[in-house]
Amino acid sequence: MMRAVKRPGVKSGNKRARHGSVPVMPSPEQIADTVNRYISLVAKGSADDLVELFADDATVEDPVGGKVHIGRQAIRGFYSAVDNVERECELVTLRVAGHEAAFQFRLTVIAGDHRMMIEPIDVMAFGDDGKVTAMKAYWSADNVTQL
Amino acid sequence: MMRAVKRPGVKSGNKRARHGSVPVMPSPEQIADTVNRYISLVAKGSADDLVELFADDATVEDPVGGKVHIGRQAIRGFYSAVDNVERECELVTLRVAGHEAAFQFRLTVIAGDHRMMIEPIDVMAFGDDGKVTAMKAYWSADNVTQL
Repeated sequence: MMRAVKRPGVKSGNKRARHGSVPVMPSPEQIADTVNRYISLVAKGSADDLVELFADDATVEDPVGGKVHIGRQAIRGFYSAVDNVERECELVTLRVAGHEAAFQFRLTVIAGDHRMMIEPIDVMAFGDDGKVTAMKAYWSADNVTQL
Repeated sequence: MMRAVKRPGVKSGNKRARHGSVPVMPSPEQIADTVNRYISLVAKGSADDLVELFADDATVEDPVGGKVHIGRQAIRGFYSAVDNVERECELVTLRVAGHEAAFQFRLTVIAGDHRMMIEPIDVMAFGDDGKVTAMKAYWSADNVTQL
């Protein structure tokens, strides 16, 4: 990253847009919007809502090193665990680069008086239509805190 | 991640080690050590030092969406930009999962009275020998701050 630090702003997407040709899709703003919507759905949405963000043949590996869920049906099954769980979720840090994003977030799962917090870093890749084509979640038991 | 939150500690690597078979390599501790060494070398090391962390056929994409540097010679060239630059670097957050890591860090580049800070999220994959096989850095001009 050192060279680029000396020349900040070398975003090929922006350049192409400035030159009047077809802008690169999805834009950084679209990617950021989708990540924010993902976080809000992890907090308050259903598995059906969440799966709408993903491409038909998307993959989800959560955590990295675990099973890879392939396709919307498998992904819906993975997220169906959220449907009856009280939880809170907030974005901590977001980085958008190219057609991808990396972000840290904080998920709190609430069961009566018991609260469990997990703080993963997720990476997502996006297709031209803005759908998530791949998600990988980086976390382990070390990143789970009993509150 | 919701299912796994309900059953924290499902680390197949640890299980295999406990059962006396060959432990998964590299271990989370080895991966964390390599990330910490990477950060200390980005702060104070040379391109020659940095490239020693990478496998022969490793790839570096920094930033994501930019040129992919393939192999140690190209990677040494990429990092050679650090050799004569005064800088500081510190790890902010580290997540290790499977044979990969995601981490946020803070790099400050110093030129006389001028300081520029950049805070990427990097992702690294590791081979069985603990060398970095792939690095991707998530950042854009939005994550560069003039101090």
